[in-house]
Amino acid sequence: MNVAVLLFEDFETLDVFGPVEIFGRLKDHYKVSFFSESGGMVKNAHGISILTGNIEDIKNGVDIFLIPGGHGTRIEVNNTVLIDKLRTICQLSKYVLTVCTGSALLARTGLIDGKKATSNKKAFDWVITQGEKVNWIRKARWTRDDKFYTSAGVSAGMDMTLGFLRDIHGPEFARKTAFEIEYNWIENMEEDNFFRQER
Amino acid sequence: MNVAVLLFEDFETLDVFGPVEIFGRLKDHYKVSFFSESGGMVKNAHGISILTGNIEDIKNGVDIFLIPGGHGTRIEVNNTVLIDKLRTICQLSKYVLTVCTGSALLARTGLIDGKKATSNKKAFDWVITQGEKVNWIRKARWTRDDKFYTSAGVSAGMDMTLGFLRDIHGPEFARKTAFEIEYNWIENMEEDNFFRQER
Repeated sequence: MNVAVLLFEDFETLDVFGPVEIFGRLKDHYKVSFFSESGGMVKNAHGISILTGNIEDIKNGVDIFLIPGGHGTRIEVNNTVLIDKLRTICQLSKYVLTVCTGSALLARTGLIDGKKATSNKKAFDWVITQGEKVNWIRKARWTRDDKFYTSAGVSAGMDMTLGFLRDIHGPEFARKTAFEIEYNWIENMEEDNFFRQER
Repeated sequence: MNVAVLLFEDFETLDVFGPVEIFGRLKDHYKVSFFSESGGMVKNAHGISILTGNIEDIKNGVDIFLIPGGHGTRIEVNNTVLIDKLRTICQLSKYVLTVCTGSALLARTGLIDGKKATSNKKAFDWVITQGEKVNWIRKARWTRDDKFYTSAGVSAGMDMTLGFLRDIHGPEFARKTAFEIEYNWIENMEEDNFFRQER
């Protein structure tokens, strides 16, 4: 399956590269590529400059579309040109996975109205304003509803990705992958050690 | 403090970007930059192309020098030009951190002869052949000996980096950082769930 990762200025490093580590090493099953609104180099605040293709190239959808979070989402939620393109890509993709505040971008498309979703705990009160009809789950490591997977903050993207592998390939495959990267996988999507009450 | 990250063809994604996530977000304390033997774009097998400076620019050492692992280390251990440069940089740097098979490159410099070090569990039997005088610790999440920190495989780089923060800034600072990225930090460097006996 093709995994297309959306990048934008000031994406969160681990939101992207946690899942990419997992999908990227499973070469018999997944091929990872990076895309951005205009293509070319995309930078973030952690000193990373990474080469991307133009999202026009995936306008007909992909197998797995991954939307990370980061401070950049605060700007991109108001980028209606990008949100319109994301809506089409998400509609036409087989699976959509978001990490952290990436769920704010997905919520803006309207595609998860009435569906379960979660996000970064620190940014939760902002994220929920981006989709008032979404069934936001405050206490979750990740959620799945239909073809949409959403994870809590940053590191939780790895647990969700391993959960996705379990759904596709079974639990032993997912556990073996976690073991190879020496990752202490939280297997239960409801086990959330970072839950915060509403402010 | 300046954090210089070594990249080479076929570096392991999360070895790099786990620690970079942690250092990168602490902008009041750390600044992350990427370097490679010749500078320019460096690719890996997970589809990532990232822009780097030339390691000549850090020949006088840095505050923190981070050496990741990955399949690329199997080639670079025999790159005597690179190993000679690494030896100088490591000697002149305040701290040297390795992740996964990055400790094989460090071992090749001879600088950790007689010192404690660990590595990826799956590659351990190969890594130890790269430094027969190193005090290899098979059961460890990470090790510290003098200015040298070495971690076990892939994800363990994050636990080590948080352990480094604890040594520099105290335990509350490290825990707060782990909490912000919603990471279930293994605080005990001897707690190793991925230990394997010698083959």
